Amino acid sequence: MRVLGVDPGLTRCGIGVVEGIAGRPLTMLGVGVVRTPVDADLSLRLLAAEEGIEEWLDEHRPEVVAVERVFSQHNVRTVMGTAQVSAVAMLCAARRGIPVALHTPSEVKAAVTGSGRADKAQVGAMVTRLLRLAAPPKPADAADALALAICHIWRAPAQNRLQQAVALHTVNATKGRTA
Amino acid sequence: MRVLGVDPGLTRCGIGVVEGIAGRPLTMLGVGVVRTPVDADLSLRLLAAEEGIEEWLDEHRPEVVAVERVFSQHNVRTVMGTAQVSAVAMLCAARRGIPVALHTPSEVKAAVTGSGRADKAQVGAMVTRLLRLAAPPKPADAADALALAICHIWRAPAQNRLQQAVALHTVNATKGRTA
Repeated sequence: MRVLGVDPGLTRCGIGVVEGIAGRPLTMLGVGVVRTPVDADLSLRLLAAEEGIEEWLDEHRPEVVAVERVFSQHNVRTVMGTAQVSAVAMLCAARRGIPVALHTPSEVKAAVTGSGRADKAQVGAMVTRLLRLAAPPKPADAADALALAICHIWRAPAQNRLQQAVALHTVNATKGRTA
Repeated sequence: MRVLGVDPGLTRCGIGVVEGIAGRPLTMLGVGVVRTPVDADLSLRLLAAEEGIEEWLDEHRPEVVAVERVFSQHNVRTVMGTAQVSAVAMLCAARRGIPVALHTPSEVKAAVTGSGRADKAQVGAMVTRLLRLAAPPKPADAADALALAICHIWRAPAQNRLQQAVALHTVNATKGRTA
């Protein structure tokens, strides 16, 4: 499974591409940051973010895009820009028919470090180890995007089993009603 | 000046198109709502919002898109979806090279009713009067989108004068430095 992780941000949007399946060593295919000019109009910054994300999608053709789920109660000062860049990433994926998965920051931290309250350094250290990199990816947004992609690869089997169970239950319930 | 106003929302996104200049009677060219399916994935809802907004832009070819400025402290439950649909609207405009103007809800209310704390009924009544409509546009999101467009037409001359003054001041300051 090839997953493109997006850690949304208006000034720096982290992007990380990871390939692999749960239980096997993972491979990093790319990592970087999409930046937008701080002094430009918001609409032009969103356009620049779209262009940057489109380039990553063109180059890596992921099967899934994993985006950090943004909460309104955190970082009130920057949350609107973060929510808006996450919308741009979701839109770019949806236009290509690529499924989008959202994971919360604590799900991501728990997946890669074992603790939902791990700090940035711990996440960076685990990403470095899991992807067998020579050094932690910088800036932190890039490491977080890789962590998102890893989190999705590891959680996807459980999510798929859950969806199958729900679908099966729905089918059975429907059968029960029509019998 | 032809302005397309957008009152962003994930379930209902109000759209209103108004033509005119400050100090003259205004004309409504169109009003409606872009809806997205409540039970769909967020990425597909944003895609549906994009398709709806694109249709309005295709049909009316506005010179300016006026979008409500979203604040994170209001309506915490729905603010993320609102911010994300506003991003979609800004992106659609920016891709076409159409300038985007943001106005706060209180600027819009003050422009059309004289009070920044006017209620929805007052805004609807004034929009109906100013555009010489037979009845207030429904739902309220549609009326709010028209109010945004009206607000922009009326505020634009002052904003342009301000921008010109700032530009002139910058030119003069630069001349002063290089003299």
